[in-house]
Amino acid sequence: MRGLYLDSGKLTLRHDLPEPDPRPGWSRVQVLQAGICATDQALLKGYMGFVGVPGHEFVGRALDGPLAGRRVVGEINAGCGECAACRGGDSRHCQERTVLGIVDHPGAFAERLSLPDRNLLAVPDAVGNDAATFTEPLAAALHIGDDVDLRTHRRALVAGDGKLGILCAWALALGGCEVTVAGRHPDRLALLPAGANVQTGWLEADAPPAAAVASFDLAVDATGNATVLPRLLPLVRPRGTIVLKTTTERPTQADLSLLVVNELRLLGSRCGEFAPALQALARRAVPVERLVAAHFPLEQGESAFARAAQKGTLKVLLQLRGDG
Amino acid sequence: MRGLYLDSGKLTLRHDLPEPDPRPGWSRVQVLQAGICATDQALLKGYMGFVGVPGHEFVGRALDGPLAGRRVVGEINAGCGECAACRGGDSRHCQERTVLGIVDHPGAFAERLSLPDRNLLAVPDAVGNDAATFTEPLAAALHIGDDVDLRTHRRALVAGDGKLGILCAWALALGGCEVTVAGRHPDRLALLPAGANVQTGWLEADAPPAAAVASFDLAVDATGNATVLPRLLPLVRPRGTIVLKTTTERPTQADLSLLVVNELRLLGSRCGEFAPALQALARRAVPVERLVAAHFPLEQGESAFARAAQKGTLKVLLQLRGDG
Repeated sequence: MRGLYLDSGKLTLRHDLPEPDPRPGWSRVQVLQAGICATDQALLKGYMGFVGVPGHEFVGRALDGPLAGRRVVGEINAGCGECAACRGGDSRHCQERTVLGIVDHPGAFAERLSLPDRNLLAVPDAVGNDAATFTEPLAAALHIGDDVDLRTHRRALVAGDGKLGILCAWALALGGCEVTVAGRHPDRLALLPAGANVQTGWLEADAPPAAAVASFDLAVDATGNATVLPRLLPLVRPRGTIVLKTTTERPTQADLSLLVVNELRLLGSRCGEFAPALQALARRAVPVERLVAAHFPLEQGESAFARAAQKGTLKVLLQLRGDG
Repeated sequence: MRGLYLDSGKLTLRHDLPEPDPRPGWSRVQVLQAGICATDQALLKGYMGFVGVPGHEFVGRALDGPLAGRRVVGEINAGCGECAACRGGDSRHCQERTVLGIVDHPGAFAERLSLPDRNLLAVPDAVGNDAATFTEPLAAALHIGDDVDLRTHRRALVAGDGKLGILCAWALALGGCEVTVAGRHPDRLALLPAGANVQTGWLEADAPPAAAVASFDLAVDATGNATVLPRLLPLVRPRGTIVLKTTTERPTQADLSLLVVNELRLLGSRCGEFAPALQALARRAVPVERLVAAHFPLEQGESAFARAAQKGTLKVLLQLRGDG
């Protein structure tokens, strides 16, 4: 089958990729469309030492299994099914897991993929293919509310006005927060929930504006930039929370004294459950279509990645078939 | 009055220190004994830019106020009494607070000090002066259990086998944890709760032992050493917790990817409530007397600090009056 194959930092279109094997308890999925994520761009630079087909944001059509014939999205962590984490329903933290397009698992930038049956969810008719491709990152954004009581963290700052930052702003607004987004692009305001505001210069300034110090209950770092965390520490009130939504290429260097003195809480946050994200998309609670910058056919994968890598580009989607 | 005065990194015995002024709602306390803490040693090196009388671990006798004549210990954060934090009963996070012997507040290495009445607690007769001097650091150690559900964090690692590390080990054991202490001194086992074990080499090794990876629910950093946090990250299971109990002189440099991927929680933790600590001391739940390395009279403050600064020294106490 056809797909984009990553090896040694180079992505090539191949026509000879092996089909996913049939496997009991797993479904094969015809990929309809897949999104390029910052993690994919990091994989190209060597993150996780990944070799194979990347891609983990997708909508497809199940070819077999319980949802055969249905449009589906799929949670990307495939657990062993037997460890304590898996038995507890949290394959996201199975130590033996593979991760679609990220860890030992051929991903969605190819015609077909496979995932455990339990990972797949049928996509409601009200959710188009573009919107459905956002299920995975929207689930990650909504996951903040699983670990942070948003009722006691009303004043929220999102650092980063890229795709993930914007989705986090929506997730927090849906949870009842007043949202400020610190980024580089004042024009992102149009993409943010009503009532949100945008601040530029906060993440580059040597010191935050005095009025902002300790003024947030919650800060979410969605920048992927290791220099941002030290700038967020003073902005959060004592006993407030900082959520790290992204890994960074370089190590973080930070004086954590403020974390101790103000008893802040720093939470790592990764993947979320898909069902709430699909529900939010079905009721059109988040206008994710506005975040689509471009569609490219699979054959133009290299151009698609080049476009995605341009500063300020929002979501670039790869189309595998037009029959969705 | 007499006391030790810190200015420009130098500690001198002075005889001309001003008496604390009487102040409505505040009590004056005759200091009987005070402990030298790692924070005091950091103040000497310039931490917080403190100038004045240091010392925040003490037992004394109230000279006036509601507890006049009683032996007392005192919580060290003196809040404004009017802000939201103070009205909520948490002066520890009042932004206008002074902190005894640390922030804008003459401390316990002098004959007399003053604190708000509400900060003082009477010391039960069962608690001697040596033990009472440990109320503050034991409260800080017990405070871990305020923010971490120890029932879901049974397997606990304490990094650091100094005074605070040992107290943290006791606090966690009292909370039902199985405790491992990673430090430099195998002979510290005798000072730890029954069932605890000691590991040396874990905090210096380039990689932790494979069997220890992801084997702890909770890790507490009580080292004050910025190089330790990155070594703790791999030792904690997914969705586990790391508590930072100490500030560090240098910035921390750490790849926080594991924090994100394993969705770890990093909590800053500072002062705790005194009442539970006093109760634990009254029922002799923690044999803190074993941690006393030496007593020095106030006049030998310089020697006391020199002794406290020797590697491996446990608690050095300054005695102000023998009448306790």
